[in-house]
Amino acid sequence: MKIVKTVKKMQSLSEGLRLRGQRIAFVPTMGYFHDGHISLMKEARKIADCVVVSIYVNPTQFGPKEDFSKYPRDLDRDLKMADSANVDVIFYPSNREMYPAYYQTYVDVEKVTQNLCGMSRPGHFRGVTTVCSKLFNIVKPHVAIFGKKDFQQFITIKRMVDDLNMDLQILGFPTVREADGLAMSSRNQYLSKEERLSALTLFQALKSAQRMYRKGERKSSEIIDQAERLIERAPFTKIDYVKICDTKTLKDIQNIKGESVMALAVKVGKTRLIDNHVFGDELKI
Amino acid sequence: MKIVKTVKKMQSLSEGLRLRGQRIAFVPTMGYFHDGHISLMKEARKIADCVVVSIYVNPTQFGPKEDFSKYPRDLDRDLKMADSANVDVIFYPSNREMYPAYYQTYVDVEKVTQNLCGMSRPGHFRGVTTVCSKLFNIVKPHVAIFGKKDFQQFITIKRMVDDLNMDLQILGFPTVREADGLAMSSRNQYLSKEERLSALTLFQALKSAQRMYRKGERKSSEIIDQAERLIERAPFTKIDYVKICDTKTLKDIQNIKGESVMALAVKVGKTRLIDNHVFGDELKI
Repeated sequence: MKIVKTVKKMQSLSEGLRLRGQRIAFVPTMGYFHDGHISLMKEARKIADCVVVSIYVNPTQFGPKEDFSKYPRDLDRDLKMADSANVDVIFYPSNREMYPAYYQTYVDVEKVTQNLCGMSRPGHFRGVTTVCSKLFNIVKPHVAIFGKKDFQQFITIKRMVDDLNMDLQILGFPTVREADGLAMSSRNQYLSKEERLSALTLFQALKSAQRMYRKGERKSSEIIDQAERLIERAPFTKIDYVKICDTKTLKDIQNIKGESVMALAVKVGKTRLIDNHVFGDELKI
Repeated sequence: MKIVKTVKKMQSLSEGLRLRGQRIAFVPTMGYFHDGHISLMKEARKIADCVVVSIYVNPTQFGPKEDFSKYPRDLDRDLKMADSANVDVIFYPSNREMYPAYYQTYVDVEKVTQNLCGMSRPGHFRGVTTVCSKLFNIVKPHVAIFGKKDFQQFITIKRMVDDLNMDLQILGFPTVREADGLAMSSRNQYLSKEERLSALTLFQALKSAQRMYRKGERKSSEIIDQAERLIERAPFTKIDYVKICDTKTLKDIQNIKGESVMALAVKVGKTRLIDNHVFGDELKI
């Protein structure tokens, strides 16, 4: 497994691969891998000649009061895990390499970033789309692979790629969960033992929404009320949002008709967790 | 000469060229060609296997009160001129192809777009950088070629390409002028006979600035005052700005030290004209 730290070297490596007709699959990450990341790397492995994984905790997608500095990092562990997943290249740039002193360009996706996490994390998606634009230009992948736990991120990236005519395919894969249903997240490690128990309420709320939908309920407010009641019952929880949205526009919908997603963000103690369920999909552990 | 109208076809043509090791030079234009455009096509011809020229009057770079709808267009004439300049491919997309109904992504270069034309044309550079991002992703050039008459545009595009790690080279070429010195512009055709005479004052102001600089003057205010007096003396003129800026930051400077540019925008009748001179460069007719 090769470790590349500069933009120039990564671009020339990727350009060489492309010229030799090699297919590049790319998994952008912030590191501190869990099985969710590994599953994306395995999917990448299936469809490409070369699998590139970036490890970069991107400062521009954190708000000033968010957890950028304490976001978990463990490069050695990440490298071992990626190597075991047969990753070919790790792109591991410094902040200086990504955002030199005179840096001043940002990519904005305007509409699908307004609701959900966009409301509580102003500037977050701007940071995400900017760094992904950069990473796509650096890694030059044929396909980039994202987890659907960050559903709004996935939709936003797809919108950006389509709007800016980036010639690559974006694939999303289902959320990987712990044995009890908690969506895997590098932030789960912030949780105390008691908080970890409460955190399960996100999954239970989605399960309950799935059950109501299967029984024929289509009114968003009914499903949301029930989910909120469940979450509020658990200790240490504070709801940021519980919403049902159209999956294309990510606007709130009153009644579930087309493809719709229940998305939720809940603070458990000091840790903000998100999860989601697209109605009609499986909700597997 | 091939005419391509869809994003998909252009991307697959360019990808094919790149895979065969062909070098692509790209000249983005809004059409209505003059010798300035043609000179860029000739420069492109010198350095590439395939020369692609886009003709697209980009709506997102015009303000609501600007001349988008009456901007001059003459496709037949443009095609003949491009063919004579040995252009290989014209990319000529529709508005619908470039900005579908659900379009919502924009690229912002924040600092170098603040001064000069950025002050009088809010949103203009956002439109320029957005459409150039798209065009670069569609045409996939190794090098893109711009005229330096639009100096701030040139600097802004270079900034964007560098910041977003777009793997292409940006080249700028000197302004091409009429026999009397007027910078060539598709908008010159708006000018009446009398306005055309007054329009020459932009070049004369730059000439006078060049003379003062050569004599040793380094105070911006002295050079600007003299230029403004010259321009104000001509009938039908209304100064938008006359400024001297650092060429990297495009911030106003009090004293000329490093590489500096005098940039001016003047309304002659209803037509807004721009021109510039980098101190130390030639100011050729």
